[in-house]
Amino acid sequence: MPTIKDIANRLGVSVSTVSKGLNGASDISDELRQMVLDTAIEMGYSTKRSRKEENRKLCLMVENMDYEHPGEFGYELVLGFKQNAYRANWDVTVIPMNPSFQMEEKYDTYLLRNGYCGAFLAGFALHDEWMKQLENTTMPTVLLDNFIPENPNVCYVGTDSYEGIELAVRHLYTLGHKKIAFLNGSLYSLVSDQRQEAFENAMEKFGLSVSRELMARGYYVSDSAKYHVPGFLAAGATAILCGNDLIAKGVIEECQERGFRVPDDISVIGFDDIPLAASLNPALTTIRQELNELGRCAYVMLESLIRHIPISKTLMRPQLIERDSTTRVPVSAGTKHGDSL
Amino acid sequence: MPTIKDIANRLGVSVSTVSKGLNGASDISDELRQMVLDTAIEMGYSTKRSRKEENRKLCLMVENMDYEHPGEFGYELVLGFKQNAYRANWDVTVIPMNPSFQMEEKYDTYLLRNGYCGAFLAGFALHDEWMKQLENTTMPTVLLDNFIPENPNVCYVGTDSYEGIELAVRHLYTLGHKKIAFLNGSLYSLVSDQRQEAFENAMEKFGLSVSRELMARGYYVSDSAKYHVPGFLAAGATAILCGNDLIAKGVIEECQERGFRVPDDISVIGFDDIPLAASLNPALTTIRQELNELGRCAYVMLESLIRHIPISKTLMRPQLIERDSTTRVPVSAGTKHGDSL
Repeated sequence: MPTIKDIANRLGVSVSTVSKGLNGASDISDELRQMVLDTAIEMGYSTKRSRKEENRKLCLMVENMDYEHPGEFGYELVLGFKQNAYRANWDVTVIPMNPSFQMEEKYDTYLLRNGYCGAFLAGFALHDEWMKQLENTTMPTVLLDNFIPENPNVCYVGTDSYEGIELAVRHLYTLGHKKIAFLNGSLYSLVSDQRQEAFENAMEKFGLSVSRELMARGYYVSDSAKYHVPGFLAAGATAILCGNDLIAKGVIEECQERGFRVPDDISVIGFDDIPLAASLNPALTTIRQELNELGRCAYVMLESLIRHIPISKTLMRPQLIERDSTTRVPVSAGTKHGDSL
Repeated sequence: MPTIKDIANRLGVSVSTVSKGLNGASDISDELRQMVLDTAIEMGYSTKRSRKEENRKLCLMVENMDYEHPGEFGYELVLGFKQNAYRANWDVTVIPMNPSFQMEEKYDTYLLRNGYCGAFLAGFALHDEWMKQLENTTMPTVLLDNFIPENPNVCYVGTDSYEGIELAVRHLYTLGHKKIAFLNGSLYSLVSDQRQEAFENAMEKFGLSVSRELMARGYYVSDSAKYHVPGFLAAGATAILCGNDLIAKGVIEECQERGFRVPDDISVIGFDDIPLAASLNPALTTIRQELNELGRCAYVMLESLIRHIPISKTLMRPQLIERDSTTRVPVSAGTKHGDSL
């Protein structure tokens, strides 16, 4: 591990200049400070410095996700992370993130300059600039719902999409549904890809066929429904599985506007179990992610990375929450299933 | 959650009898004590009792694995677990396990009767009796290298076999090898299944073909080599990837006895990086599992399950350790690969 002297030698400057650069002193130029930081990172200095005990700052960067109000997806996630980190005497800064910010500075440099020992990143997209940089980061980093291969400083946390989607499909199958549509979330998302594969696997496992007109990708918002639900209904779907609860909200509304009763004519099932789910009409059957506990888990993993335990991936259990938006397949569907009536 | 009184009512006995049964008092019959324990577990009492703060006992059950001497696979694993648990003031009992013991008593009953709050199970086979019972256990349980679906009380920890095998195949591919044989470990093992799939995936990814005569399943012992290496050599293998380091030791010896030089005539690569690997002749190139850190990780996961964080699966990063048992494909193999000479 390089010392301040090594960095000074590499740059041909004095030890005190390097020290000023690393500690944010104001009596050197911005350009020189940046050069010191970049060189320190290149030489692997970040890890050594930022893992010192006295410097206990973590950051939680959030993109594409609301977290400021109870009921929003990110709220419990952020809370769970912060609660656990505070208990262990870490300072946590929550930073709203966007793609243009990521073009201004390198990820490692940003963390080092601000004295963070590690970061939890939630809601980043596969094509974000900093996601590419994570392949080589030396900063302990936990990523929600995204996986970076072969870098022992980065860990993926999430809920097991495969088990979750299988719970949903099995629930509908048990209720006699055969024509199950799937309105998935966004492209450029690892979990969307996983849920797509999980859906096709689960349908096959229960002997149900999937067809192109019963599958679509929207975004993780309610508005997705109006573009895809009419096609699903026309193709004879008796149940619609949704990529998240917001999509399910839109799907229920769209079905109802078109004169379909939920669940009597068509069953709808969500994913996440955000607080909204229980208050929809009908109350939404969904696959629960334990968001507070996912946040706690993200903290535990980040702390493990900081202690050099090279955890690669941690998945949480999903849970089926049965409410009122799913029921047995309607007789009129002509798709009776065993003793399902 | 049931009280002692609920259990007494169910059994039609007094509260003090239930209390004696749960606390191992000697003045009730063995039969009655067993009935009290079985009923308590059936009613979900175990979780409540065993998660009490004052009762801080964990157990680590080890099967099919040596752990008492430095250098053996289980040694660092057990050490890492114990070190971390002790630091958090847990008592840890290490119990050597075997299949017949598992027929004598139910898993949950055993843990409850001995006052354990949770367990880490290493080396269990897919067909072990207690593995079946884990599908419904209410005791926090971490399993090395085995996955139990849909039970939030059980978590799987291991090293990412897919990434590990891909590192190995890429290493050999980069050295120009095309005819790569795979001598895998035991049947009835989830990791053997994963490594088999990973091997076939990785070979396909690098455009290499797999053939039946270049793949075999043995056991995780050196003796496996003599049954399979002759066939691999006859089929023209230039490299042999092994399910673990013990197998690799046998493979190297078998090749040498048959007049093949390692690595000049044939490259050999292991898995695990137990201390033996570095002392073989030639020193073994292998895929390292961080066993001490895997043990630490198992403790962190068990502690999370005890605190009701439903972690399902945690994987650690493997690492390629390049030593002397692999080199560029020999010219004589007639399987030149690009600029590999």
